[in-house]
Amino acid sequence: MTLAYGVLRGGGVCARVEGRAVDLRGLDPIFDAPSLNAFMAAGPEVWGQAASRIDEGRELSDAELALPIDVADYVDFYSSLDHATNLGRMFRPDAEPLLPNWRHLPVGYHGRAGTVVPSGTAVRRPLGQRPEFGPSQRLDIELEAGFVIGTPSTMGEPVPIDHALDHVFGMVLVNDWSARDIQAWEYQPLGPFLGKSFATSVSHWVVPLSELADRRVPRDSQEPEPLEYLREDPWAFDIPLEVELNETVVARSNTRHLYWSIAQQVAHLTVNGASLRTGDLLATGTISGPEPDERGSFIELSWNGQEPIELEDGSTRTFLEDGDEVILRGDPLGEVRGRIEPAHG
Amino acid sequence: MTLAYGVLRGGGVCARVEGRAVDLRGLDPIFDAPSLNAFMAAGPEVWGQAASRIDEGRELSDAELALPIDVADYVDFYSSLDHATNLGRMFRPDAEPLLPNWRHLPVGYHGRAGTVVPSGTAVRRPLGQRPEFGPSQRLDIELEAGFVIGTPSTMGEPVPIDHALDHVFGMVLVNDWSARDIQAWEYQPLGPFLGKSFATSVSHWVVPLSELADRRVPRDSQEPEPLEYLREDPWAFDIPLEVELNETVVARSNTRHLYWSIAQQVAHLTVNGASLRTGDLLATGTISGPEPDERGSFIELSWNGQEPIELEDGSTRTFLEDGDEVILRGDPLGEVRGRIEPAHG
Repeated sequence: MTLAYGVLRGGGVCARVEGRAVDLRGLDPIFDAPSLNAFMAAGPEVWGQAASRIDEGRELSDAELALPIDVADYVDFYSSLDHATNLGRMFRPDAEPLLPNWRHLPVGYHGRAGTVVPSGTAVRRPLGQRPEFGPSQRLDIELEAGFVIGTPSTMGEPVPIDHALDHVFGMVLVNDWSARDIQAWEYQPLGPFLGKSFATSVSHWVVPLSELADRRVPRDSQEPEPLEYLREDPWAFDIPLEVELNETVVARSNTRHLYWSIAQQVAHLTVNGASLRTGDLLATGTISGPEPDERGSFIELSWNGQEPIELEDGSTRTFLEDGDEVILRGDPLGEVRGRIEPAHG
Repeated sequence: MTLAYGVLRGGGVCARVEGRAVDLRGLDPIFDAPSLNAFMAAGPEVWGQAASRIDEGRELSDAELALPIDVADYVDFYSSLDHATNLGRMFRPDAEPLLPNWRHLPVGYHGRAGTVVPSGTAVRRPLGQRPEFGPSQRLDIELEAGFVIGTPSTMGEPVPIDHALDHVFGMVLVNDWSARDIQAWEYQPLGPFLGKSFATSVSHWVVPLSELADRRVPRDSQEPEPLEYLREDPWAFDIPLEVELNETVVARSNTRHLYWSIAQQVAHLTVNGASLRTGDLLATGTISGPEPDERGSFIELSWNGQEPIELEDGSTRTFLEDGDEVILRGDPLGEVRGRIEPAHG
């Protein structure tokens, strides 16, 4: 099993190696920290040294894991062409599904860093304006991957695309829970806010980018060719993903469906001079493939609620009900799970 | 002069009292920290005790000040009716200027916390897609106030409007620099991103909310009456503001022009269960008044670049040029200044 790093409840770094959890506390002060951030900030040389010392750690029989990173800024992109096309078809049926900017830049926005939670955290159904006030009636998931920034960049200095991956420590799995009814009413003209900010779940383990080298696959060329600061040989990671709801797998997708790469996202994010900080989380946006069973959200799987999904227990769903448990999986990233609790009050 | 708190370059808390800066380091470990966050997290009792001990501090003859807070999440609202109306008139001349949601909720979005900088930091003109690639040609300011969260709230539990101010430590002045051409191309459908994320400047001093009690003034009732979770007797702070460009005052405004209050913003931000963290920065959005010389941005003052502004040196401006210096002022918040540097490369 691919090497990955996590953080123990109460603090301290551990590693996942060949399916075992290994305690790294005591090996180096950097591993006694409350999150991976100090380790991630130390850079590739220290990351390499750490990987060679993992055998010195003590095996943990029962590791309880916490949020692995102290999230600095959380940015959510919109980098799956099939997902953006599906939403365009649903919401603007008489127009071109992709907006004019989509093929020219990786569309993205800032989310709420303070409500990023680790896998297993219960998710309370949000209240809000739909526009009538009440519990969200269109509670959804977003199947995403996320990239975590290790070494920071300097404000005012764009990161060239050839150096973008030098700043990326590793990859996680992300469920960006979404309340579609709240979002639909609030999002004009400044984008999603409360429809997204109530919770974002991430996997316990962060897989270093260096471990994913053999997952890189070439992609078709981008049309039109991107501007120079976004130009590279098109590629993606080949990581199979699945969405399970109450023990039924309802969708399978893959990170290779992403149109924009993490290198392009980093180059775009910094081209205006914005700096990267250790702990920045850059999520991909929902990862959908071209087929109906490759859609990474319930709004797509149920085609805006019109086509209910059948589960193995005989029930059907359009959006999530209280008590539902969603598990996203993607080897070697691991899993991210969450169960829906009833709304407050 | 109203009591305020700041942070010295290199760390350590100081106070501004009667126009003097007073060193609080050594009085309590909470004042030796690198930011105000530990003090802000301690709550109203500690804040009150601190105010009574300021006389024990040593007067500083020449205090160099840093960013006062470690920003957790940065949220920018859109709470001035005149600003939202002006932009609506400019960009949607044939439609109702206010979008349907505006009078029902305080529209807002998340900005980039990692590029919040203290007053005096130079601001480099951003590069980006306008959609042709190059330095922004419509670089602008936004005259705003900001509120800083002291005591956190619990995830999953909305903060009732009657308790919202208990979580607010104090107030700062904010210049939310904006590249209008970059924003116009990128912002559909997920809102502003690189048009805003390159820099946000805040004042050195944070004025505790307790110092602003006599600045509270009643406002006209809101139409329609807000939903119950947003309902309170309408009020605003009466704080005069001004915008100076290269030694010409080009606009005067006032925080009393804000339609939505900070209490309403906190209640809205948390109604979906999102938690507050110490150091969250909640900015108001551009504060414009009803008169043409009360507009808090150059896009409004120059009416989308059509009506140049005359400066006292005989030159004119629509948007900012390299070398321009902008100073926002607002007693008792202080000032926030920044000078434009040429774009990178």
